[in-house]
Amino acid sequence: MKDKNIATIGGGTGSYTLLSGLKKYPLNISAIVSMADDGGSTGVLRDELGVLPPGDIRQCLAALSDSTDMLRKLMGYRFEKGGLKGHTFGNIFLSALEKINGSFARAVEEATEILDVSGEVIPVSEDQMNLRIELKNRRILKGENQLDHNEDVRSIGIKGVYLKPEVQAYQKAIDRIKKADFIVIGPGDLYGSIIPNLLVNGLSEAVRKSKAKVILNCNLTNKKGQTDNFSLEDYVSKIEEYIGKNRIDFVTFNRKKLPEKLIKKYEEREGKGSVVGIRERNAMRSYRIVLANILQENEIKKAKNDNIAGTRSFIRHDSGKLAKVLTMIFEMGDYENIIKEII
Amino acid sequence: MKDKNIATIGGGTGSYTLLSGLKKYPLNISAIVSMADDGGSTGVLRDELGVLPPGDIRQCLAALSDSTDMLRKLMGYRFEKGGLKGHTFGNIFLSALEKINGSFARAVEEATEILDVSGEVIPVSEDQMNLRIELKNRRILKGENQLDHNEDVRSIGIKGVYLKPEVQAYQKAIDRIKKADFIVIGPGDLYGSIIPNLLVNGLSEAVRKSKAKVILNCNLTNKKGQTDNFSLEDYVSKIEEYIGKNRIDFVTFNRKKLPEKLIKKYEEREGKGSVVGIRERNAMRSYRIVLANILQENEIKKAKNDNIAGTRSFIRHDSGKLAKVLTMIFEMGDYENIIKEII
Repeated sequence: MKDKNIATIGGGTGSYTLLSGLKKYPLNISAIVSMADDGGSTGVLRDELGVLPPGDIRQCLAALSDSTDMLRKLMGYRFEKGGLKGHTFGNIFLSALEKINGSFARAVEEATEILDVSGEVIPVSEDQMNLRIELKNRRILKGENQLDHNEDVRSIGIKGVYLKPEVQAYQKAIDRIKKADFIVIGPGDLYGSIIPNLLVNGLSEAVRKSKAKVILNCNLTNKKGQTDNFSLEDYVSKIEEYIGKNRIDFVTFNRKKLPEKLIKKYEEREGKGSVVGIRERNAMRSYRIVLANILQENEIKKAKNDNIAGTRSFIRHDSGKLAKVLTMIFEMGDYENIIKEII
Repeated sequence: MKDKNIATIGGGTGSYTLLSGLKKYPLNISAIVSMADDGGSTGVLRDELGVLPPGDIRQCLAALSDSTDMLRKLMGYRFEKGGLKGHTFGNIFLSALEKINGSFARAVEEATEILDVSGEVIPVSEDQMNLRIELKNRRILKGENQLDHNEDVRSIGIKGVYLKPEVQAYQKAIDRIKKADFIVIGPGDLYGSIIPNLLVNGLSEAVRKSKAKVILNCNLTNKKGQTDNFSLEDYVSKIEEYIGKNRIDFVTFNRKKLPEKLIKKYEEREGKGSVVGIRERNAMRSYRIVLANILQENEIKKAKNDNIAGTRSFIRHDSGKLAKVLTMIFEMGDYENIIKEII
């Protein structure tokens, strides 16, 4: 497994979970991260300082960092008062590094050194990404942040997202996809974290052409107005719209039965069908579904100042379990052997 | 020299200069730093977050840091726009560490580790220090910041400063003074950086009782309204009001002749007699004056975002030269040997 090159594609808390788990294995990890975030502390820094959005990158750096607990705690610390209120220290850190270096990519490299990061964290683009959201009534919303904070998204529903203007992929991201043995997509918000990467010029094409096996960590829950009633198959086909038909080789999915109470609680918030299922059992597919218990089962306590846990779904992946399943896939020379785990 | 324990007392840019030079020698340095600063970025953080003032400590940490240039540059980076405008990154860094650790002293210890600092930086007190300035007309100004920013200080002049309420010395500062071989005071603003330390309960007494030799790095310039027409002798006697008569053993002073043009320029700004001199040559003294060229002779360029250089006098100590003279004093077993340098 030592020499396997793994390129992950995502952003936000999904990538944090994925990378926190993978970090414990001897892999060459290149985490490719969406630059579309424009909310919260990140949005303020983007607006006020003209920097690239640091939030998602910061989370990935923290996930892969070998530095002291204190330094990692510091990166996630959120100020509670005064002019710094709402800002996460790690975001300020990345923005200052960007200002000093005159380049976000260079700032991330410096941060990688300071935080003793195993692997690489790579912004998908060095350009400012501006996400546009088209609602079903054709109205356009500006900004990724609107996905979670504009009530119209939930009540009207979205038709799709696009970038305006178009942006170019960062060459390093393309290179890492080219030389990857495995490309791991998700988990993460489909429209907020995953598709923004695939919209960047050159990125999806690189995935399409790469010789890597592609693994999708299918989300466990849907979002009202965005992925209503999505099944595993819908996630696959939506992503393959970008990276090419039949491009996905494996899909990891949870087989641990969820408590009815939890499903009910979730559906009350996000609507009927908001817990993802498999639509067709025993169907012919171009990909294998790897079923395993990858559910985070301990109740999640939202720590004070832990601004990662706070935004997560309460039905979520366990980083250790997910990594274990993925490394199982990475290790199999003969993929047929894992057929027992496959339906 | 290896095992010599050096305790420095000061704050602000004077300490930065002193420590940047001493750092290059194999000494055990404990930098005791005033906590009276309440201006600029530091003042805002004190007010808004209730933290202890990070600015002077940050400068001393930077001076003694063995970390990469980038990390040191980062610590001194000042934001230019938006809600972070005016804040120095290193101040935000120390304030976040204080919030996480619940103790400023602990935060400084963590920062010492992260920044790979040789030696110790020690806040003189763990209490919030509030400086009061009494003007010659008996009016009281609140806050150290007023010294440099209230025009009445310059036009009316000050009678003295005190702390309200009284604060206790941090035990570690007392300990380091006790075990010091040399206590080095200044350079630095007499009322803004030096006396605030001496006002802290327990501190001056510790200096008085210590077996250490005491060295004063006499300031080269005076400040209008604060130290008008002060000679070297006035600095000595003012400081000995706190630490005890005849307590100072050595005074370093510049013997390099200043260009008339520079003196004139300085006196235009700070008034006649604002360049410090020695009042009585060949006088009987309880201390030795060590004369040397310790003047910074290159013209100082104010780098963009260098918020240290920006606040300094343009007649100032050279950190390398000052350190060389001091280590000469530290090394002399027989202090009589340096008599050639003494008047």
